Amino acid sequence: MPRIPEDQIDAVLALVDADIDKSLQRLFDLIRIPSISTDPGYRDQCKAAAEWLSRDLDSIGFDASIRPTTGHPMVVAHQKDAAGPHLLFYGHYDVQPVDPLALWTSDPFEPRLEPLPNGDTAIVARGASDDKGQMMTFVEACRAWKAVTGKLPVQVSILFEGEEEAGSPSLAPFLDATAEELKADMVYVCDTDMWDRETPAVTTMLRGLYSTEVEIACADRDLHSGMFGNAARNALQVLSDVVSSLRTPDGGVAVEGFYDGVKELPEAIKAQWQRLPFDEKGFLADIGLTIPAGEAGRSVLEQVWARPSCEINGMSGGYTGEGFKTVIPAKATAKISFRLVEGQVPEKIRDAFKAHVAARIPADCSVTFKDFGLAPATVMPIESPFLTKTLAALSAEWECEAALAGTGGSIPIIGEFKRRLGCDALLVGFARFDNRVHSPNEKYDLSSFHKGIRSWVRILAELAE
Amino acid sequence: MPRIPEDQIDAVLALVDADIDKSLQRLFDLIRIPSISTDPGYRDQCKAAAEWLSRDLDSIGFDASIRPTTGHPMVVAHQKDAAGPHLLFYGHYDVQPVDPLALWTSDPFEPRLEPLPNGDTAIVARGASDDKGQMMTFVEACRAWKAVTGKLPVQVSILFEGEEEAGSPSLAPFLDATAEELKADMVYVCDTDMWDRETPAVTTMLRGLYSTEVEIACADRDLHSGMFGNAARNALQVLSDVVSSLRTPDGGVAVEGFYDGVKELPEAIKAQWQRLPFDEKGFLADIGLTIPAGEAGRSVLEQVWARPSCEINGMSGGYTGEGFKTVIPAKATAKISFRLVEGQVPEKIRDAFKAHVAARIPADCSVTFKDFGLAPATVMPIESPFLTKTLAALSAEWECEAALAGTGGSIPIIGEFKRRLGCDALLVGFARFDNRVHSPNEKYDLSSFHKGIRSWVRILAELAE
Repeated sequence: MPRIPEDQIDAVLALVDADIDKSLQRLFDLIRIPSISTDPGYRDQCKAAAEWLSRDLDSIGFDASIRPTTGHPMVVAHQKDAAGPHLLFYGHYDVQPVDPLALWTSDPFEPRLEPLPNGDTAIVARGASDDKGQMMTFVEACRAWKAVTGKLPVQVSILFEGEEEAGSPSLAPFLDATAEELKADMVYVCDTDMWDRETPAVTTMLRGLYSTEVEIACADRDLHSGMFGNAARNALQVLSDVVSSLRTPDGGVAVEGFYDGVKELPEAIKAQWQRLPFDEKGFLADIGLTIPAGEAGRSVLEQVWARPSCEINGMSGGYTGEGFKTVIPAKATAKISFRLVEGQVPEKIRDAFKAHVAARIPADCSVTFKDFGLAPATVMPIESPFLTKTLAALSAEWECEAALAGTGGSIPIIGEFKRRLGCDALLVGFARFDNRVHSPNEKYDLSSFHKGIRSWVRILAELAE
Repeated sequence: MPRIPEDQIDAVLALVDADIDKSLQRLFDLIRIPSISTDPGYRDQCKAAAEWLSRDLDSIGFDASIRPTTGHPMVVAHQKDAAGPHLLFYGHYDVQPVDPLALWTSDPFEPRLEPLPNGDTAIVARGASDDKGQMMTFVEACRAWKAVTGKLPVQVSILFEGEEEAGSPSLAPFLDATAEELKADMVYVCDTDMWDRETPAVTTMLRGLYSTEVEIACADRDLHSGMFGNAARNALQVLSDVVSSLRTPDGGVAVEGFYDGVKELPEAIKAQWQRLPFDEKGFLADIGLTIPAGEAGRSVLEQVWARPSCEINGMSGGYTGEGFKTVIPAKATAKISFRLVEGQVPEKIRDAFKAHVAARIPADCSVTFKDFGLAPATVMPIESPFLTKTLAALSAEWECEAALAGTGGSIPIIGEFKRRLGCDALLVGFARFDNRVHSPNEKYDLSSFHKGIRSWVRILAELAE
C-alpha cells in the first residue's frame, strides 16, 4: 500500500490536467531547438537544448548541471529530499535528422497540433515522440508533485543524453566516471511503445546479441568453372552448406548447446500474451509474409521477444554484377548474428558457433571470423517490486491490465546501466506504433503525453515508502 | 594407308625445316599488326590484319576474300583442287588488349625471340600463341605442300575471324549466311593446348552449359533482425538451403535426373588418361588445394572434363559493406551454372533445376530465374576416321601417343559450327600451359610453331584419299 494518501495523488493529477496546455507549451519550446546530434552543424543547438533542460529542472527544485563530454553534453540533476528508493530517470534530448525535408507537411521544428480521426490530437514535429515528448512526461510529473506537495515522493536523479541518435559514444565513459553519483535502485527509461493504443506496457526483456563476419577461403584465387568445375572446392558452396546447417527444419537453431540454459517463458507472461490483443497475421501481413519462420508451435511474440534466433544479415562472393561470369569463387563471406535470451552465455554461443562452422570446413579450406557485438540478454525478474508497482500504477491510469513486453532488439544503453552502474532498468513508454519515429512527420499523441504524465505521477506515488 | 608416298611427305617436311626462319618472319609481320578487337581504336589494324592474311592466302593459291560484318571482317579462302575430304580450318586474327603494359618486358607488338632454360626458344608477343602463332602453323603447312607438290592433299576452306576475343558477335549470322559455302566434312580449330610439353592432344570433348540467376524474395522489404528475427523468413537462409541442397555429400549433383543419360567414359579414353602423365596433386596444389571436390572415386581429369558439375558463381544479399547491419534481407540472389556432358539434355536440366528450387521455397516466398547460357556438350565419337587419322599423324610427328583430351569449358564457336553448318570439329593445338595467353609477355614456343607446322603437314597427308 502506498504511503501517499489518495487525495494527494488526485490533487497532483488534477494539476496535471489543469496545466496540460502549459506543459505542452514547454514541450514546444524544447522541440523548437533543432538538436540534431549526428550533424556537427547543430552542435550549438544541442548545447542549447541541454541548457534549456538544465534551467527547467532547476526551476522545479532539481540540482541540475551540464556536464561536458567529448561530444554533446549530458544533463545531470538530483532531487533527493524524500525518503524511499532512488530512481535514475534516463531520456535523450537529441533528435534524428529531418531529411528528406520535402516529405514533411510542415516545418519539423515548428510543432503543430493536428486532430486525429479517433478524436485524439497529434503533436507533429521532429522529437515530438523520440524522445523529447516522452522525456518531458516524467519532468512534468515531477513538476506537478513539487507544485502540490513541495517535494517528490522518492529520490530522483535524472540523466539526459544528447548523443543517443548518434550511438551514445560518450555514455559508457560518462557512466564510469559518475557511477557513484548516478547509482540508483532502479533506472527508468521513457523511450518505448505501448502494447497497443489502449494498453500500457513495461518492457522488461531485451535480447542480447552476438554478431560476426565469417570468411571462408578455398583456392588461392578465383578460378574458371570450365577448367576447374567439380575438382576445385567452391567457397560459396561451402558457405551455403554452413549457413544451411544453422537452422533445423522446424525453425530452431542447430548450433550444439544453443538452447542450453534457455528457460520457458513464465506462465504468467505466456498467459498474458495470449490474453492481450496481438494480431499475428496482421504483423506478418504488414511485411508481406504469412508463415512464421521460427520454432514451430511458438507464437510470433515468443519468437521475436523470448526465443533466441540466428539470422544471416549479408552474404557475398563470386561475381555479383550484371550478366554472368563462370567463376569459382575462392572466398565467400557471410555476416551472421544471433539474438540471445536470458540464460544464454554469449561467449559460449560464440565458441559453439565457431566450432560448428569449423567442423564443416573441408581440410584444405580455411575460415576466419571477425566479431562485432557480444552482449547478453537483459531481463527484469517479474517478482521485482519496482516492476509490480509500476504495472499497478499503469493499470490504474489506463484502466486496463498493463502488459509485460519484450523487445527483440538490443538496446545498448540498458546493458551499459547494468555494466557500469550495476543497475537494472525498466522501460516505460507511451509512444504508439504509428509515431513515425525517425521518419518525416513524426508525431506524439496528446493522449500519450497527457496520460504519460499522469502515469508517472502514479508510478512515483506507488514507489514511495 | 595414306595415298601420298612417304618420300613426298618427307620432302614437304624438309621444306618446312629449311624455311622455318621465313615462316617465322611472316608470323612476325602478322604479329606487328596490333589487331585488338575489343578496342574500337584498333579497328583499322584489325582490317589490316585481315588484308594481310587474305593477301598471304592468295599468294599460296587460295581464292581468298575479305567479308565485311557489322564488326571486324572475316577472311574466307578456298583451295579445292584436290580430291578427298573437305576441311574447314578456323582461326582468329584478333588479339587481347595488352594492359597492364608496364608488366611487359618488351613491346607487345614487336615480337622477340628469347632462349628458354630447356633449350627451346620463346616467341614473345601479344598473339604469339593466341591465335596468330597457332593459326599460322596451318597456313605454313599449306604453303609447304603447295611449294613441293603444286597442290594441297585435301580440299581446304579457311575461316579467319577477327572478333573471337570480343565474344564472336558476328560469327553466328555469318555462318548462317555462308553455310552452303563453308559446310565441310570436318572443322579443324588450332587454338588449344598440348597435353603436356611433349605430348600432342586432340580435344574432342567439350562440356555444355546451363547458367541462370536465381532470385528469392521473402518479405516486402528489408527488416530489422531485432524486431523480426525468427518470425520473418530470411531470404539468405532460404537461398543457402537451396544452394546447399544442390550437392550430395560425396560431391555429386543432387538435382533429380541430373545424371540421366550420362555415359561412362569409354574404356579406351579412361585407360589412356590413366597411362598419360597427369599430376593430380600438382594440378590442385597449383591453385592452393589438396582434395578433389567432385564425385568420390573419380579422377580429377574425369571430374573436370567428363563429368557434369554445378557451380555457384556468385551470391549476394543483405548488407555486405564494412561493419555490421542487423538486417533480415528481403531478397537474395545466386548465379548458378551447370557444366553438362554428352547425354544430358540442357532443357531437361534447366527444368529439373527450376523444379528442385521451387520445391524448396516457402509458400509465402517466391523465386524468379533469369537464364543466361544453354548449350549441350559436344563430343566427337572416338571411332571417327578424322580423329583416328589425326591422332596417327600427331603421334608420328611427336613420336609418342597423342592424347584424347577434354575441356571443361564450353567453346561457343564449336557449338555454332555444329548448329549452323552441321559440322563436327576437332581441336588440335600446340600451345603449352605456360604460354601466358591473355597476360603480359604472352609467348609461343618455337618448337610449338615448327612442329605444329610439321604436324599439319602430316595430318593433311593422312587425310588424303
